[in-house]
Amino acid sequence: MKKTTKETLRREIREAVRLVREKNPMAPSITNTVTINLVANAQLAVGGSAAMVYLADEGEAMAALGGAMYINMGTMLPVYAETLPRTTKALSEQGKPWVLDPVGIGVGGLRTSLLLGFRTDVPTIIRGNASEIIALAEIWELDSGKTASGVRGVDATDSVEAARTAAISLARHTGGAVAVSGPIDLVTDGKSLALAEGGSKFLPMITGAGCSLGGVAAVYACVTRPFVAALTATAIYNFAGAKAEKHAEGPASFQMAFLDALYQATSEDVGAQPFTLETIGK
Amino acid sequence: MKKTTKETLRREIREAVRLVREKNPMAPSITNTVTINLVANAQLAVGGSAAMVYLADEGEAMAALGGAMYINMGTMLPVYAETLPRTTKALSEQGKPWVLDPVGIGVGGLRTSLLLGFRTDVPTIIRGNASEIIALAEIWELDSGKTASGVRGVDATDSVEAARTAAISLARHTGGAVAVSGPIDLVTDGKSLALAEGGSKFLPMITGAGCSLGGVAAVYACVTRPFVAALTATAIYNFAGAKAEKHAEGPASFQMAFLDALYQATSEDVGAQPFTLETIGK
Amino acid sequence: MKKTTKETLRREIREAVRLVREKNPMAPSITNTVTINLVANAQLAVGGSAAMVYLADEGEAMAALGGAMYINMGTMLPVYAETLPRTTKALSEQGKPWVLDPVGIGVGGLRTSLLLGFRTDVPTIIRGNASEIIALAEIWELDSGKTASGVRGVDATDSVEAARTAAISLARHTGGAVAVSGPIDLVTDGKSLALAEGGSKFLPMITGAGCSLGGVAAVYACVTRPFVAALTATAIYNFAGAKAEKHAEGPASFQMAFLDALYQATSEDVGAQPFTLETIGK
Repeated sequence: MKKTTKETLRREIREAVRLVREKNPMAPSITNTVTINLVANAQLAVGGSAAMVYLADEGEAMAALGGAMYINMGTMLPVYAETLPRTTKALSEQGKPWVLDPVGIGVGGLRTSLLLGFRTDVPTIIRGNASEIIALAEIWELDSGKTASGVRGVDATDSVEAARTAAISLARHTGGAVAVSGPIDLVTDGKSLALAEGGSKFLPMITGAGCSLGGVAAVYACVTRPFVAALTATAIYNFAGAKAEKHAEGPASFQMAFLDALYQATSEDVGAQPFTLETIGK
Repeated sequence: MKKTTKETLRREIREAVRLVREKNPMAPSITNTVTINLVANAQLAVGGSAAMVYLADEGEAMAALGGAMYINMGTMLPVYAETLPRTTKALSEQGKPWVLDPVGIGVGGLRTSLLLGFRTDVPTIIRGNASEIIALAEIWELDSGKTASGVRGVDATDSVEAARTAAISLARHTGGAVAVSGPIDLVTDGKSLALAEGGSKFLPMITGAGCSLGGVAAVYACVTRPFVAALTATAIYNFAGAKAEKHAEGPASFQMAFLDALYQATSEDVGAQPFTLETIGK
Repeated sequence: MKKTTKETLRREIREAVRLVREKNPMAPSITNTVTINLVANAQLAVGGSAAMVYLADEGEAMAALGGAMYINMGTMLPVYAETLPRTTKALSEQGKPWVLDPVGIGVGGLRTSLLLGFRTDVPTIIRGNASEIIALAEIWELDSGKTASGVRGVDATDSVEAARTAAISLARHTGGAVAVSGPIDLVTDGKSLALAEGGSKFLPMITGAGCSLGGVAAVYACVTRPFVAALTATAIYNFAGAKAEKHAEGPASFQMAFLDALYQATSEDVGAQPFTLETIGK
């Protein structure tokens, strides 16, 4: 396999942005009730199409109808005990990519049980903050970068760098990609690793910035490979965040300007976002 | 019965806008979790009052307390198997109007089963896009305008014109009104048929434009007959959409300006919206 | 116990605003699906942290993890029959404060049954409009200020003044605080009673103004006593509402400016909001 270069990646990113605007692919979601509206509006703003469901047979139908799916664990409901396994099984059977957002990992029996199940029924893209990515690697018993003493190198609010080992482990385990959101974003498929900067101080101040990034990654996963989908979503968020901050007086005017900027972003804008790329040995 | 003229209709539309601002009628909803906030805020913006419920006995209570109800099939939950039939039965017993928004028609066993039930337990106003209206006429085994070959005249993204036959069939079956949303909107009660233009290219880019129109139609149904309620909701959406687009830089600033414009719209503004009217023979 | 003076209170309010900005305390919620996004964003805007759950074991986990909780009865779901009693029991065992928002009181069997249970499993802060506060005092069989004839002194749309007796009864029963929202806001702990003015005509025109005030009160309850938490939330809402109205052309631009103003508000701004204070004899 040819080594991925930055130039190749930039071309793939521009192509992903363009294809979504052209084809309007549907990436259905099973997602939390807090940020469900923002997820849908962000998916529409980048040119995708949204549909949200709760029931098991509707999850299966969405796996068939959508180009990819977004599954967010934020607000667990009793029906998810049936819906999530049947949906991810259908996705797997149909070879459809899906994005997992392990929000709330560590809280509650149902969420833990479902996340354990995804160890074998693997997602295509995993998106989370550093702490969530480390926690997922831990419950899947992968190398999370945790030191022998049980104390992480960088603790407390885990930095993206602290999640590097966990992200690589997860990507190699799933064969897909992992996106870690933070001041510096990390995206890896276990072979290449990209770091990207940008965005805005306001992004963590609006609920659903991360969730909607996951939903947008699912939209791009309808038209490109997982690593590029995760990187494109990260890049358009960094572009739109920086642009929106210029016009914002607080988190609410930021959110409005941010969604508008997602809508306005061209493939050139997104493809030009800075990132560093390294090849990581196995 | 006297033939409805455009002048009569304009007077009725102005009166509906005015009465809602004056009386603040409550039109409770059972609606999807994606756009529930926008439905409530749109209902408030035109002068109505909102209340959303999920449980069966609360649906019955709302049927008694509200002037009309809005039922949207977007995100089915297990409890709806009990809540929706009991609520629509209560609405029917009390002679209260209700708006059905058959979002997601064709997906899932529960939604299909409930929609089949509404064939006898009929809604007062049906609101949907062209494809939804055609699909509802089909599952109710009414004339949907589908040709003998099984191929619709205008297929793929069904146009509003393609839904004309289905809309008329549904209106005549229910004895109420049907509103089909699209670039050109169609509203009919089976005797008269109005076509209206306006709105904005941004309306399909915000999630819940259609849902909230349905919720607003329910508010107007508290104070006027179904055909006028559907036409008034359509007219205020066309007015506010066109006004908001002038100030919008993308879908999010559009949504804000749109809700503000719903709030600002006067009865004269709404009554002056252009539409064509034809009398349709049986 | 030393008598609370206005000057002491202003110092406590400034301190609460400052501590929340500094410590970013988490106040998880079990709240309705209509306004859940606004609750979270308002909590973030004042400097707190949000987490929303539905399941019983997650409610218990949140009682342990959060500094205080917000429980809003707006949209009852079947699972709440188990979740709410287990969560409030956990809060009580851990001595954590929680805010009750009895939205929809009087509608439905489950809501009534749960609200009756909170008579003994008492909330720390109760927030509602005048009618809700009176209704809660009535179902708890406390003095609601209802006259012998069964007709309230000020009826129909109950004014805040009409809820004075009920608010004091509830505060004395729970040993916590009660906040009644309206054109004039009333906050009492059964010993002191504050009346505050401000806000905006637009606050009742956006869905969730009251809910999000309750969520913000829970954030302040993480760092200060119940009476001060309720008063601080009321004061920052009055400040932000008045500021936002100057820039608003309707309810949606108001909501955006309002959230921005919550974010911008300094401890000095909030501490300077006018209120009257009286000591009420037992």
